[in-house]
Amino acid sequence: MISLVNIKWIGDASSGYLRLLDQTRLPLEEIYLECRTVEGVWDAIKRLSVRGAPAIGIAAAYATVIGARLGRFDQSVEYLSSSRPTAVNLFWALERMKRVDSSCPELLLKEASRIHEEDSQMCRQIGSHGFELMQSVFVNVSGRQPALLTHCNAGSLATGGIGTATAPMYIARERNLPLTVYVDETRPLLQGARLTAFELQAAGIDIVLISDNMAAQVMREKRVDAIVTGADRIAANGDTSNKIGTYSLAVLAAHHGIPMYIAAPSSTFDLSIPNGCDIPIEQRGAEEITAFFGCRTAPENVRTYCPAFDVTPAELITAMITERGVIQPVSKENVKLVIGGFQKNG
Amino acid sequence: MISLVNIKWIGDASSGYLRLLDQTRLPLEEIYLECRTVEGVWDAIKRLSVRGAPAIGIAAAYATVIGARLGRFDQSVEYLSSSRPTAVNLFWALERMKRVDSSCPELLLKEASRIHEEDSQMCRQIGSHGFELMQSVFVNVSGRQPALLTHCNAGSLATGGIGTATAPMYIARERNLPLTVYVDETRPLLQGARLTAFELQAAGIDIVLISDNMAAQVMREKRVDAIVTGADRIAANGDTSNKIGTYSLAVLAAHHGIPMYIAAPSSTFDLSIPNGCDIPIEQRGAEEITAFFGCRTAPENVRTYCPAFDVTPAELITAMITERGVIQPVSKENVKLVIGGFQKNG
Repeated sequence: MISLVNIKWIGDASSGYLRLLDQTRLPLEEIYLECRTVEGVWDAIKRLSVRGAPAIGIAAAYATVIGARLGRFDQSVEYLSSSRPTAVNLFWALERMKRVDSSCPELLLKEASRIHEEDSQMCRQIGSHGFELMQSVFVNVSGRQPALLTHCNAGSLATGGIGTATAPMYIARERNLPLTVYVDETRPLLQGARLTAFELQAAGIDIVLISDNMAAQVMREKRVDAIVTGADRIAANGDTSNKIGTYSLAVLAAHHGIPMYIAAPSSTFDLSIPNGCDIPIEQRGAEEITAFFGCRTAPENVRTYCPAFDVTPAELITAMITERGVIQPVSKENVKLVIGGFQKNG
Repeated sequence: MISLVNIKWIGDASSGYLRLLDQTRLPLEEIYLECRTVEGVWDAIKRLSVRGAPAIGIAAAYATVIGARLGRFDQSVEYLSSSRPTAVNLFWALERMKRVDSSCPELLLKEASRIHEEDSQMCRQIGSHGFELMQSVFVNVSGRQPALLTHCNAGSLATGGIGTATAPMYIARERNLPLTVYVDETRPLLQGARLTAFELQAAGIDIVLISDNMAAQVMREKRVDAIVTGADRIAANGDTSNKIGTYSLAVLAAHHGIPMYIAAPSSTFDLSIPNGCDIPIEQRGAEEITAFFGCRTAPENVRTYCPAFDVTPAELITAMITERGVIQPVSKENVKLVIGGFQKNG
């Protein structure tokens, strides 16, 4: 395993604890939190020490083991639910834990480990499918090593495994395929610079950090062979909501004839949403653009527009990489074929 | 005059001084430097208190008046030349001053004022041509007020007048035409957030600050009617070098059917360069991307790629706005027609 271990249960069910990489300290310090109480895990989720939908679910599942051995399983589940009320995976993981005999911490630990392991396997499946898909793109590269460009953090830090968009990169590293990854810093919150650059560098992957507005020039100079990002939510026709800046990359990739890949687990698809027009876009506060690490970068009282996400239309996406296989070309029919059978709303 | 007065000679030739807006303090503080010595102006140029090619030339021209009244005109010219050795306008302005009788500070002040006034007039001509051009785009806007998007700072802060890319905005303000300007923050050095947002807000223009990767979404939502930026250097065929991120905007504008305008004085054209392939692109140091106002944002020793400029091919530029008129469509022939007769190398 060459990726960072951001979530790890240490010891047995009766006396063990949860070790979490404190992502709020990245990229300056690699500090691990030893969570021996439910409150400690709640706090880590709340403070974004652990972030990313799958990672939050896994951490909360482990935390119920700690609650159960004090005879407070039900209260723990309720309490943990309040840590990040918008995180769907959090509730999904806690629901799974509620189906286990809560009088037996060993069984709870087994279920939490299973959730963790399933997520890790899902990442590896995405990695394998993605790696295979990209082989066909990389085969014609000459004069430099194959290169990808990614945006935000859909990496190991957000999951219980090797990430989603990053999974093919870790697979390439494992197989000693030379690969360069251009990482968008990803304004306003810099998840690319702070998290993706950190985790890929820690894994020994060759990375090049750029500011978001350099991506077009990087493509024009033929420095990258494909773009790969994660997804926040995917509609039935393949329209994809992801971190602001993803749509920009998709338009630029199409202009330069570079494939645009979205890597995401099947749980990201919401087949009850027909297309991207129905995906709401969250607006964020002005301070994300007007200040940075506490330093003001813009005049006072300046008006901002700060969408957290954008929607990339399916026609700009070359292929989608899921744990169930690759969707290409991206169409309502192909989404249904790969994902539909596994979802209620399909 | 509604734009900021960033350069102003106060008093007469024998006892006056140069007042400069200290741009290093923006956007947090509006502080004016009173330069009563040649060294003071040299220092202001060196420390980037005054920046932008035309503005540097004007400041240096005024500084020679101070040198001359101490009987040190020649030494002043030589000394000022060393303040920003890459600034072409600096040498051009000092050459003009050398043609004046240096024993007479009044004549020198008159010449410096003329350089200042000519630059100011040039800005107004660009503004008028640009405003007229944009009227045709704005006429069909419904449901909101007309809107532009700009990048970096090609504004009054960089010139002796109302700027180049910003000139049509100031003209619109003078004529009470409602107008919204979306301002790219412009990573890595944030000239958009720090300078353009500041000067346009100070002029009472309605602005909306965004991060660079939001521009595509802003265009997709039909929030802007045209893109307008300045230029660093323009080749004979119209290929244009400008701040990194300009090329990205041009590709995105073409995709969304939005006009892309470049506003620049004829002195920006270099007709000895046939096309953009021959424009060298300066690479900047890693710290511009890995740190932000002194705070590190990326892991240590991370590799970066940091081009300061990019080149937008002529075919992505809808029109060029110069003080001599509008070049549209952008072609070698039309560039020569509007600019050629006025340049040695044409």
